[in-house]
Amino acid sequence: MAKKQLNVGLIGYQFMGKAHSNAYRQVNRFFDLPAQINMHTICGRNEAAVTAAAETMGWANVETDWRKVVANPEIDIIDISTPGNLHAEIAIEAAKAGKAVWCEKPIGNTLPEAKAMLDAVQAAGVPNAVFHNYRKAPAVALVKKMIEEGKLGTIYHFRAVYLQDWIADPNFPLVWRLQKEIAGSGTHGDINAHIIDLARHLVGEFDEVCGHLHTFIKQRPIAGAINDKLGAEATSEMGEVTVDDAAMFLAKFKNGALGTFEASRFAVGRKNKNSFEINGSKGSVVFNLEKMNELEYYNAEDPEGYQGFRLIQATEAVHPYAGQFWPVGHIIGYEHTFVNLVADAVTAMCAGTPISPDFVDGYENQRVLDAVEVSSENRGWVSL
Amino acid sequence: MAKKQLNVGLIGYQFMGKAHSNAYRQVNRFFDLPAQINMHTICGRNEAAVTAAAETMGWANVETDWRKVVANPEIDIIDISTPGNLHAEIAIEAAKAGKAVWCEKPIGNTLPEAKAMLDAVQAAGVPNAVFHNYRKAPAVALVKKMIEEGKLGTIYHFRAVYLQDWIADPNFPLVWRLQKEIAGSGTHGDINAHIIDLARHLVGEFDEVCGHLHTFIKQRPIAGAINDKLGAEATSEMGEVTVDDAAMFLAKFKNGALGTFEASRFAVGRKNKNSFEINGSKGSVVFNLEKMNELEYYNAEDPEGYQGFRLIQATEAVHPYAGQFWPVGHIIGYEHTFVNLVADAVTAMCAGTPISPDFVDGYENQRVLDAVEVSSENRGWVSL
Amino acid sequence: MAKKQLNVGLIGYQFMGKAHSNAYRQVNRFFDLPAQINMHTICGRNEAAVTAAAETMGWANVETDWRKVVANPEIDIIDISTPGNLHAEIAIEAAKAGKAVWCEKPIGNTLPEAKAMLDAVQAAGVPNAVFHNYRKAPAVALVKKMIEEGKLGTIYHFRAVYLQDWIADPNFPLVWRLQKEIAGSGTHGDINAHIIDLARHLVGEFDEVCGHLHTFIKQRPIAGAINDKLGAEATSEMGEVTVDDAAMFLAKFKNGALGTFEASRFAVGRKNKNSFEINGSKGSVVFNLEKMNELEYYNAEDPEGYQGFRLIQATEAVHPYAGQFWPVGHIIGYEHTFVNLVADAVTAMCAGTPISPDFVDGYENQRVLDAVEVSSENRGWVSL
Amino acid sequence: MAKKQLNVGLIGYQFMGKAHSNAYRQVNRFFDLPAQINMHTICGRNEAAVTAAAETMGWANVETDWRKVVANPEIDIIDISTPGNLHAEIAIEAAKAGKAVWCEKPIGNTLPEAKAMLDAVQAAGVPNAVFHNYRKAPAVALVKKMIEEGKLGTIYHFRAVYLQDWIADPNFPLVWRLQKEIAGSGTHGDINAHIIDLARHLVGEFDEVCGHLHTFIKQRPIAGAINDKLGAEATSEMGEVTVDDAAMFLAKFKNGALGTFEASRFAVGRKNKNSFEINGSKGSVVFNLEKMNELEYYNAEDPEGYQGFRLIQATEAVHPYAGQFWPVGHIIGYEHTFVNLVADAVTAMCAGTPISPDFVDGYENQRVLDAVEVSSENRGWVSL
Repeated sequence: MAKKQLNVGLIGYQFMGKAHSNAYRQVNRFFDLPAQINMHTICGRNEAAVTAAAETMGWANVETDWRKVVANPEIDIIDISTPGNLHAEIAIEAAKAGKAVWCEKPIGNTLPEAKAMLDAVQAAGVPNAVFHNYRKAPAVALVKKMIEEGKLGTIYHFRAVYLQDWIADPNFPLVWRLQKEIAGSGTHGDINAHIIDLARHLVGEFDEVCGHLHTFIKQRPIAGAINDKLGAEATSEMGEVTVDDAAMFLAKFKNGALGTFEASRFAVGRKNKNSFEINGSKGSVVFNLEKMNELEYYNAEDPEGYQGFRLIQATEAVHPYAGQFWPVGHIIGYEHTFVNLVADAVTAMCAGTPISPDFVDGYENQRVLDAVEVSSENRGWVSL
Repeated sequence: MAKKQLNVGLIGYQFMGKAHSNAYRQVNRFFDLPAQINMHTICGRNEAAVTAAAETMGWANVETDWRKVVANPEIDIIDISTPGNLHAEIAIEAAKAGKAVWCEKPIGNTLPEAKAMLDAVQAAGVPNAVFHNYRKAPAVALVKKMIEEGKLGTIYHFRAVYLQDWIADPNFPLVWRLQKEIAGSGTHGDINAHIIDLARHLVGEFDEVCGHLHTFIKQRPIAGAINDKLGAEATSEMGEVTVDDAAMFLAKFKNGALGTFEASRFAVGRKNKNSFEINGSKGSVVFNLEKMNELEYYNAEDPEGYQGFRLIQATEAVHPYAGQFWPVGHIIGYEHTFVNLVADAVTAMCAGTPISPDFVDGYENQRVLDAVEVSSENRGWVSL
Repeated sequence: MAKKQLNVGLIGYQFMGKAHSNAYRQVNRFFDLPAQINMHTICGRNEAAVTAAAETMGWANVETDWRKVVANPEIDIIDISTPGNLHAEIAIEAAKAGKAVWCEKPIGNTLPEAKAMLDAVQAAGVPNAVFHNYRKAPAVALVKKMIEEGKLGTIYHFRAVYLQDWIADPNFPLVWRLQKEIAGSGTHGDINAHIIDLARHLVGEFDEVCGHLHTFIKQRPIAGAINDKLGAEATSEMGEVTVDDAAMFLAKFKNGALGTFEASRFAVGRKNKNSFEINGSKGSVVFNLEKMNELEYYNAEDPEGYQGFRLIQATEAVHPYAGQFWPVGHIIGYEHTFVNLVADAVTAMCAGTPISPDFVDGYENQRVLDAVEVSSENRGWVSL
Repeated sequence: MAKKQLNVGLIGYQFMGKAHSNAYRQVNRFFDLPAQINMHTICGRNEAAVTAAAETMGWANVETDWRKVVANPEIDIIDISTPGNLHAEIAIEAAKAGKAVWCEKPIGNTLPEAKAMLDAVQAAGVPNAVFHNYRKAPAVALVKKMIEEGKLGTIYHFRAVYLQDWIADPNFPLVWRLQKEIAGSGTHGDINAHIIDLARHLVGEFDEVCGHLHTFIKQRPIAGAINDKLGAEATSEMGEVTVDDAAMFLAKFKNGALGTFEASRFAVGRKNKNSFEINGSKGSVVFNLEKMNELEYYNAEDPEGYQGFRLIQATEAVHPYAGQFWPVGHIIGYEHTFVNLVADAVTAMCAGTPISPDFVDGYENQRVLDAVEVSSENRGWVSL
């Protein structure tokens, strides 16, 4: 009997498009899944560029109008990897068309958009997923398991940063990620969103937040062409930066834990430091995406005098996902978090169960993002 | 010609008393100073205990009434190492008596106390110092020098934690450090005070703060005897914890930098993690007291492809203080920060210049502590 | 005009087969190469197993007789990923058939085998490669570049270990890797071979070696079925371990540098620690495969007081290979070393230049392995 | 009743003299011992210099002729901290005079000297000690305890380096430590001696060794004045370096463990990296003197999936020596290893038990040093 086939239509072909394409190409090579993912169609507005991308990345068909992809009856899953300003419209159309909708984060550029998207997939009853891929690093999945098994006890502290430095140079141009009307927000929606998702996933729901969004460099050279992060030339004309360069906030969780969060693109020397520490009554863990195959774990129940943070190489067959790839000590990389996410999503879709994370997660994440923005304006705590 | 002699009277003989005594014993052995420190008198209320301490630590005389120490004309310097509730009265009397006043931090248990102490030393014109000893770790002094020389450029971020776990066990007794009337505050005054001092010393003055103080465990067994941290037995009776277990806050500095601060005694696995990271336009540094001989330094002006955080062993003869002790790679410890502080204080006193840090620093520190407490109550930002 | 097509026939489908298959699948997705790799045929003796492997890994055809693969005129490249006892025969046949020959390391189970293989590819004039994949980690390639540019100056020391612990349990069964007639040698040929290759690649040719091979556990339960590392069941019958558990040696290089080498499968806690340190007159570097995206670099020409080992994240666009994958700080994994090796091999083959590393490297490596074995028997130094 | 008094006469006042003086000054301040150490007399040939040293370091009397110190009936302990060429004569005289003899390492410049010294203290029946101070770092003492308790199981590997870089510059002058007639040997006796002692102390006696001593820079500028490491000026005249710059060797221990040892003063970037790793059947440990308050420990009996090297901060009250100093996380330094050694020596002397380490250790250490030198000349293994 032939395996179930799932045809994907991918909207967007830049950084996230490349990461998602790789996941679709690799997932059935490493996971024994109930369905086969097919790379059916890739879509972008620039026909030459998207055609080249299709060939490089292995897509069967090319399209320049996303509506045609959504309308195509051969396609089962719409993957939305565009800048944030297009997410809502595509997602809602795709849901109406009965497609599974898998969307990059944050799902909408505004909270109402996110709500409309959630309503749409729930009304249509279609499978939905959001690409909070860092949940799927083996070390992070191990933390989830440890918490569920009570290994950390009562959680007192969640302490996270997501630090980068790619715009610390004042002459770095005004790419689309620095423009509110396209990107929705700056560090806050781009990278705080990730650590907020990890917090919700691992610690639980937020109760209150109090934060501050800040823009260090308020004007930058306008970009010669709208490109991704690393691709734009600076022009001699200046334009307004309309998003935050850094965003920090304090939080209280509903279960009584305290949280600190900080995202910045001005942390000179930090390239992709998505790192958290959790302190519980029975133990603590530390994760850093730049060393994503490792987990530091302190077990408060180790014998006195022999306690300490131990460095677990989360590459053993017993660790989540790790057994699908290579023997212990042979590390995996950033791209594998997407492979793992797609494997989980395919499994859940075939089983008819919710995908984790889904649009509920996407929406709840955005409620937190939004509350922090309100808090930054109101200069005080905001309840969720 | 005989060297100038400085006779010290030390009030208090527990943890800080031991650390200060060691500094007085060692300072002239490693530093060539304009004066000789003499360990003249140690004072405590329990005569047997203070007599034993005097013998162990090498004090010439013992006293049980601090007023007699202050009144003793042979004594030049009054060192106040008692719990916080006694600082103000002793300091003010000592100032009136024309003594140099060296005081543990935070200088007062309340802001008005701190102000009265500052006024007293200024009115009396006496040399004064506060034991913010971590300024004097060679690696921290190196950071100060780097910032003064412009090596870090414009500072964007200061990010500090001071994490311990010694009261995470709910059965840990209600020692004096957990009682507001004696200790003044909990983690906030005990350990946030240290990272606030480092922030002021390295980054500059605070503009605004917004924070939250929290008590996880509100009742504890009453301690059998008032002892220091590690010394009390639990009784079967319960008492109210009246200080904070954790204190976190966001900050804006007057120079435009952003700050995050978190102190906790519930960070299971963290023993004495007094750690900060500074991100500037030209470079970044990371310090952690548990590895206090090291400084991580990222130089943004290193050649492309060869940038990275480098681990400086701040034990070279060219590093501040380090040349007084041992050859490179032969580390010093916690106690040496006090030796360095006393060396600096003696030098400044003999030169008639202000000691760094002094009561102005103590008072300004307390203004920040106080503003965070107000912010915690008012649930919003507070200006300084 | 159509791109040149290169059809691969892969002999072997276990651990190395999986790693090589992935490289063939991915290489043209990330590198812009002068030829397209096609996964033409996979070959193994167990038809059911190899058929399953072909489907999982994406091979077009299946074969159970390697001679048919070698004889197939459609195939351009024979990839030999079998246990070592089959390497020589297949390689020599493949060379005679005019195929490019790409072989796992060590190329032969004995030095005469290796010599015969080298002679065969040279006589046939066919492109040849050996899978010393760790040369192709970006951080290692960066070290190569640094040495070529003189950044390390005169090299004084090369200090390498390759430490694992997967057979430290005395009950671990007698898998094929512990049998001399199949595997050729133990840790020495399996993992010392890797650090010897890195030494030759980075420092230069060996002059003399002096070493010791050791077997801690001389008898083990016979394996239920011959499987790879992690796959065999123990039976109740015992058999002789005929290879070394650990192999250590001292070396002098022709350029005057000194070397220490140690490989062990009894280094409890070490999973895959392939690590080296190089000390040169102008600087030093440290690499560890378990943290393969990082390189520690000490620049002796940094200003006094600011020297230290810096942690380079070798994931920047300017670093070798790294720009083909993801933005800085988004790490790659073990499997990418094979992708990089295949990319280099395709490029060299199309240009008609020698592949690095090739059978000359494989043979020279084996000369060193052999000299250490002789030294271990003769209990003294052996010249190369 | 008055405490027993022990009067020390210290011969030598440079680097080791400073470290020993500090230990004598501090030991009774931190340890409750059965005797009081008194700093009676310091001795050196340069009267002005030794007088200044006495004042700085706190010695009561000064002497320029060591024979007078040895003859002084008030003195109980002769501490020999001179260059190695004077050790034997002083030690033998001191033993004859019935003094306790405490000597820097290596005890003699040659094996016959060491033997004569051992014979002398045994014949005289006087307490004797050798300053292998690194045994006394809390983390090392913890390893000793772990091994004695069986926590590491059967030991398979001991892997040690002692790496420095202070003479890597070819223009560094020919100080006394580079002259065989004064220093005895180079890195080998100076720093290999330390890791050999740690190996004997922790693993057990050596069975066979095979090594190589090497001099990279054979001529250097003659030093203007014989000074310690960091003190000499270079002259324009060149002289022969008569000791080794680097020394490496393989070892087999009598209990079946394997060892690798490497000492170098040409490991650019390494300041004082005295580091070892021990792999046993039940666990492994890693120590590095530059981070001497930490011990990495891998427990093979931790649950599957939760194994990893843990970082123990060996600063807890339950750790050897650490409870004498400061609370957990407040580190101690290099100098404290001497304080701990002296505390142990005083305790043993008063109890009439052998001091650890004593002249037997000094002599056995020298037998290993000597065997490696013979091996280097003979180019093969040497039995002990």
